[in-house]
Amino acid sequence: MEVKEEIRTEGNAQADKAGANKTADAEVRRQVHHQMRVIRQGAEELIGEAELETKLTVSIQEGIPLTVKFGMDPSAPDIHLGHAAALRKLKQMQDLGHNIVIVIGDFTAKIGDPTGKSKGRKAMTENEVLHNAQTYQEQIFRILDREKTQVRFNGEWLELLNLNEVLYLASTVTVARMLERDDFQNRFRGGIPIGLHEFFYPLMQAYDSVELKADLELGGTDQTFNILMGRQLQKDRGQEPQAALFMPLLEGIDGVEKMSKSLGNYIGICEDARTMFTKVMRVPDALIVKYFELATDIQPEELDKVKEALADGCNPRDCKLALARMITALYHTGAETAEAEQFFREAFTNKAVPEQAEVLEVVLESGTLLDCVRPLTNAGIVASGAQFRRLIAQGGVQKNGVRVESVEEKVQTDDVLKVGKRRFVRIRMS
Amino acid sequence: MEVKEEIRTEGNAQADKAGANKTADAEVRRQVHHQMRVIRQGAEELIGEAELETKLTVSIQEGIPLTVKFGMDPSAPDIHLGHAAALRKLKQMQDLGHNIVIVIGDFTAKIGDPTGKSKGRKAMTENEVLHNAQTYQEQIFRILDREKTQVRFNGEWLELLNLNEVLYLASTVTVARMLERDDFQNRFRGGIPIGLHEFFYPLMQAYDSVELKADLELGGTDQTFNILMGRQLQKDRGQEPQAALFMPLLEGIDGVEKMSKSLGNYIGICEDARTMFTKVMRVPDALIVKYFELATDIQPEELDKVKEALADGCNPRDCKLALARMITALYHTGAETAEAEQFFREAFTNKAVPEQAEVLEVVLESGTLLDCVRPLTNAGIVASGAQFRRLIAQGGVQKNGVRVESVEEKVQTDDVLKVGKRRFVRIRMS
Repeated sequence: MEVKEEIRTEGNAQADKAGANKTADAEVRRQVHHQMRVIRQGAEELIGEAELETKLTVSIQEGIPLTVKFGMDPSAPDIHLGHAAALRKLKQMQDLGHNIVIVIGDFTAKIGDPTGKSKGRKAMTENEVLHNAQTYQEQIFRILDREKTQVRFNGEWLELLNLNEVLYLASTVTVARMLERDDFQNRFRGGIPIGLHEFFYPLMQAYDSVELKADLELGGTDQTFNILMGRQLQKDRGQEPQAALFMPLLEGIDGVEKMSKSLGNYIGICEDARTMFTKVMRVPDALIVKYFELATDIQPEELDKVKEALADGCNPRDCKLALARMITALYHTGAETAEAEQFFREAFTNKAVPEQAEVLEVVLESGTLLDCVRPLTNAGIVASGAQFRRLIAQGGVQKNGVRVESVEEKVQTDDVLKVGKRRFVRIRMS
Repeated sequence: MEVKEEIRTEGNAQADKAGANKTADAEVRRQVHHQMRVIRQGAEELIGEAELETKLTVSIQEGIPLTVKFGMDPSAPDIHLGHAAALRKLKQMQDLGHNIVIVIGDFTAKIGDPTGKSKGRKAMTENEVLHNAQTYQEQIFRILDREKTQVRFNGEWLELLNLNEVLYLASTVTVARMLERDDFQNRFRGGIPIGLHEFFYPLMQAYDSVELKADLELGGTDQTFNILMGRQLQKDRGQEPQAALFMPLLEGIDGVEKMSKSLGNYIGICEDARTMFTKVMRVPDALIVKYFELATDIQPEELDKVKEALADGCNPRDCKLALARMITALYHTGAETAEAEQFFREAFTNKAVPEQAEVLEVVLESGTLLDCVRPLTNAGIVASGAQFRRLIAQGGVQKNGVRVESVEEKVQTDDVLKVGKRRFVRIRMS
């Protein structure tokens, strides 16, 4: 009897274990599903989706994080929300527990274009590269967790390659395949010279993936060719190929062009809370969801609610306020964000400043109201400089909701002037 | 008066010196002219002719020899007179006092084709390369002076190149330029894959010229692209570009196809004196001058005499005897050459063996007269095997002018059989 008892107990234990396994499997599946949603959200394309799911399953089951690669040219950009879309995605994956590796292309940067023909490929000195990498890091660590981010310089491994290894690398790809890349194809067809060394830039980026054993590489859609080449090279070396996640370009606050500093339609991640909040409020309604997807870390379930609300006919302005709050809070303290919102409400909402005020171009890097006289006169907003001065003296001109005292008052891009009772003018420097 | 005297003397000395300079200049010009004639003789094309004349002038004036480069793949060829044309040209330049550098492409050979797709580019081991290089050297030193010839392996410098230097190298050439090379162009147009590494073979050969500071590179016309790339690379590095001397292909003794072992129309430089002499005598009259140019070291003035003699209607056979004597003597002793000529005269001339005997193909690598029965019967030269045996027994069959005793008599390619009173048959194994 004791024996039977034991057997029965063992049987129960097995059943318990099977049940527990089932629950664990379900939990893994749930987590994989969640992670896939987070990863896919806002992305333009994901290549190697099934492979990535498998990698995630193993990662969750065994507690081993994936290696997520992101490359950058050390060309010292001012990072704006457009650039930040990829970094935010990295942050989300960091929050899911994965390893983020930023690869700084110092090797390539130091080479530049040996022919000197391409200005975009000017060789940088060691010091320039280090300085720019430093500037870049200061900015990315406004988004990524410094402690959990690896920063690697690809010169570390590329400098060690000798001709033999370079030829092996080159042998993995054909000339015809290289010429499939859009920019090469166009130049080749157009008779614009392509230096043979240029064929190596995609190969080097691909080799970085081999060196890092990357599980996933993130990049803009302009990186498609290079990132897919990484997959091929990894396969050639017997590695599991990396998945490839492509982030779309984010339109600027004009809602038309891609976000770009030179077009003046950008929101920089280093801008102060007021400016950031105010600029987000100017984003066209049609882009609210895209901005949530690419410029915030909103959870998929929360985003579903926003989409529902918009579909149910809620006031887009409320969604945009939530968006502005969420974005500003990513780069500023709660107090700063609250103050920015209050400022916005007072300056624009309460005083009924239309968000889409007329835009007045002033061709100056910085200036005063005096510099605005001619454009205001030309635009027919004031009759003359004398009338403008009188208006100011009478308290009829406001800058960002505050009464202006003098024509010496400084103005800058995105300041909103109220001129007289009805005219609102947004300044844009160019 | 003394002063005047002195001045006069000095004046005379200056005049003497000027005269001496004039004579020296004339002598230099004469030598340059002579060397240019030797170099150009038999060559298909000379690129950088004016530059080469300048180099020669400086070389003669300052007593500094030029560096003449010749590359080889360590693929262990049996060298025949076709290959030897370039080597003979090198020997002639060696005799003019210049430095000959043979570059053995061990680096390329050891790489082979990393994709393994091309059989022609099978990677060789270090040992294979060294063994083949050894075999090759044993043969080339039948032509070149071992003491005055430098043999270099290009791995010596190519193995030291790192990615940085490789990219610099690659940057000196465009993709379009590479695709101008005939074989690349044809493959590209035909959709036949070109591995990116293949673009490096011309670059590596070109880099060898930079490394050696070559003044002149010699090669076959199939090397045009690679050798001209050497010029370009040298210019890029601030070197005087090498001149490029292209040797034509030499037709085989059939006078039709290019000389080739597989076509059986070749004269190997290791063949015995009798075979060599006899084979040269079979060269068609139309090729006598070309053979003099490419297969001997005849001086330009002597060649002029041969051309004149031929133009004056001399018997081409006499010129050919001189040619056979000259070629055979390059690879054999005077006694051997004389013996070979005597053998030829006895076997062919005295016994009236036509030089252009019928050719009978025997499909065997080696064999005996027995193996010839069927072909001889098929060709209607003998009626049957029995008749052939009877002829042999009666002394009616000769091999190379010597009576054959048995059907077991061994035969080989180029043996001439006399069968009966009138039929001459040359054996060719295939």
